[in-house]
Amino acid sequence: MDSFSLVCISCGREFSPEDVLYTCPECGTRKGTLEVRYKIPRPKCCRPEDLFQAIGRRDMWRYWPLLPFGRVEADFTPLEVGPSPTISCDRLAGKLGISRLFLKDDGRNPSASLKDRASTIAVAKALELGFSSIYCASTGNAASSLSCVSAAAGLDCYIFAPASTPEAKLSQMLVFGSKVLRIDASYDEVFDLSMTIGEEKGWYCRNSAINPYLLEGKKTATFELFEALNWNVPDYILVSAGDGTILSSVYKAIMDLLDYGLISRSPVVLGVQGENASVIADTYDSGPPFEPIDQTTQCIADSINVGKPRDVVKACSYTKENGGGFVRVSDDEIVAAVYTLARTCGIFAEPAGATALAGLEKALADGILERKASVALLITGNGLKDIRPVAALCRESKVLPPDEEAIKEELK
Amino acid sequence: MDSFSLVCISCGREFSPEDVLYTCPECGTRKGTLEVRYKIPRPKCCRPEDLFQAIGRRDMWRYWPLLPFGRVEADFTPLEVGPSPTISCDRLAGKLGISRLFLKDDGRNPSASLKDRASTIAVAKALELGFSSIYCASTGNAASSLSCVSAAAGLDCYIFAPASTPEAKLSQMLVFGSKVLRIDASYDEVFDLSMTIGEEKGWYCRNSAINPYLLEGKKTATFELFEALNWNVPDYILVSAGDGTILSSVYKAIMDLLDYGLISRSPVVLGVQGENASVIADTYDSGPPFEPIDQTTQCIADSINVGKPRDVVKACSYTKENGGGFVRVSDDEIVAAVYTLARTCGIFAEPAGATALAGLEKALADGILERKASVALLITGNGLKDIRPVAALCRESKVLPPDEEAIKEELK
Repeated sequence: MDSFSLVCISCGREFSPEDVLYTCPECGTRKGTLEVRYKIPRPKCCRPEDLFQAIGRRDMWRYWPLLPFGRVEADFTPLEVGPSPTISCDRLAGKLGISRLFLKDDGRNPSASLKDRASTIAVAKALELGFSSIYCASTGNAASSLSCVSAAAGLDCYIFAPASTPEAKLSQMLVFGSKVLRIDASYDEVFDLSMTIGEEKGWYCRNSAINPYLLEGKKTATFELFEALNWNVPDYILVSAGDGTILSSVYKAIMDLLDYGLISRSPVVLGVQGENASVIADTYDSGPPFEPIDQTTQCIADSINVGKPRDVVKACSYTKENGGGFVRVSDDEIVAAVYTLARTCGIFAEPAGATALAGLEKALADGILERKASVALLITGNGLKDIRPVAALCRESKVLPPDEEAIKEELK
Repeated sequence: MDSFSLVCISCGREFSPEDVLYTCPECGTRKGTLEVRYKIPRPKCCRPEDLFQAIGRRDMWRYWPLLPFGRVEADFTPLEVGPSPTISCDRLAGKLGISRLFLKDDGRNPSASLKDRASTIAVAKALELGFSSIYCASTGNAASSLSCVSAAAGLDCYIFAPASTPEAKLSQMLVFGSKVLRIDASYDEVFDLSMTIGEEKGWYCRNSAINPYLLEGKKTATFELFEALNWNVPDYILVSAGDGTILSSVYKAIMDLLDYGLISRSPVVLGVQGENASVIADTYDSGPPFEPIDQTTQCIADSINVGKPRDVVKACSYTKENGGGFVRVSDDEIVAAVYTLARTCGIFAEPAGATALAGLEKALADGILERKASVALLITGNGLKDIRPVAALCRESKVLPPDEEAIKEELK
């Protein structure tokens, strides 16, 4: 018997992982995203050590009973993905007037983003299924991540990237030795091209919402957050949303942990989107059944500048089911959050990584988040991955002559 | 009684930390670098848990009995510095013909370099001593690191940087809110200017070899490496050397652990320098007493392009005392090592971070390192901190039209 099944998020049909590779054959690639449901019995009591036995690894693989493999794949790659730090930032909590602020810094992963958790699962799954090549379409982080994890595992990696991909992320893909196809088109067009060519070539697909297992990897960030808090849940969790998979993964973590009795209540989850890149929030506002409203979008945070989000149906369904919500923020608010996070907490996040903080400030200002609450933010990527939004600082930075007096004058 | 004393590396005089802030008053700032010597009794048996009791932190602070503080300073900053991964890369070990290859990936620290370990100690010491401002001169990593750790601790930070500092590192300093003094001069001139102005202003000094405590922080990388290997030492450790402090810290870790009985033998340590930036190796070759031979240097790895290394006396003395040695590598060998590390191990290192691998390949080719040995490399910084050496890849990367046939043609 399989240790899990795959259930369509739209029609509810259940499949064996042996019968279906990616999405529901009835509902198609856009609405037929599958959910992994575990069949392992719930332990009699709800201690974490009953469910997650020690396997000699401290990284995300230690949650293997709630990962979509029949056995531990601990040997597939030596890279350590997670455990990223959970930091309590009391100074910023005080400034914001909330009781506690926890920052889950997932920019500390091998390729410097949370996406490494999904890539790890995808690469392990490709190896389990006997593929020797893997591909994805990505604005940057998923691609640099897949390149990194594939290189460590010795898997051939093909990347479909929009020409506008930031230089640092592109450097990562190329340094890790992926075949990078830079295409003069939007992420959404590039995504569709990747699906056609990837399928024709017979490569394993690591595309958001197509591959049902990515979200299972991403949810380990939330597992780690709760474990760092001794399985006490904060009142709120905020996370940026582009494609919708990371947002969905937070809900999936909560649902899994509730199912298995490791947590006893659910935090309120808020997805944060750019005000001109808010397709998931707009689709959610239109109410069920969630029909994707594709748009042309603009957002300084390239990782969440998504006009045709792939995981929109799951993200909206989970939000509805769990009583979550959305917040929209401007580019200026995102850049301000990058500085606040760096200067009060010592964390340099990429714009999409700091977007959760922008959302928290907005939610407090709008009164949709209670003061005195405890709040956790998912920081999804490192600022070194895209320094363009702070490049003005460098340009404005004056060069001084090697002269004591001139330097002292500058310090006045 | 103080839990440690400070001993001059040149004349051997011993001081109380209450009497001396930085260097030996007799031997001066260049040759009077101090060494921290612990006075805590050696436990009766040599189990790590006897020395390093659990203090509820998994980061570098858990080694606090061998850190230069009278009490645990665990609350000084919420940033988690270490534990960075120790990765076993069997594929690359096989290619190189050695028995085991361990990579200590210190690019996974908060500001993405090993320097965070030194900055953590310096910031904690500044707070303990009642300073509200701190400064350093740096080509990049020490400065971005100090900016990061200071921001999290609420300390004012002043940076003296050569105008040539790479953009990503400069971005970090500025984002973290440091006052950055970019000076049109070499690192060595900038260093001297910083000493004059920093002392006049009464700021705490985090300059290599001047501040005796930095090395105590850096040595925790080697502590972690050995702990990950269950306190079994590899046959060789290789690490790049610029100022000499990280190299000295490896020796200091080994000497401390031998003193306290946690390891029973010493690995051979090899410092790796650029062939046109090899002041420490050249000074070592000239024999004791080690008189620094300052030079004009050139090396693609900006972090180790140092013509006037500050920790040269300690680095040479420790090398002599412990039977270590040096390897010199070219810029091309360094860049090649960046690619090898990324493509076989999934680690994107900055040039100075990959220099240890270049040194390993050189040492194997020259027959100064035995085949079949087990080897550990310290990867000192993340590649995202300086993408210039791989920028050519991005420039050469072709942009394709959004056309299926054109993409398939490219894949042929």
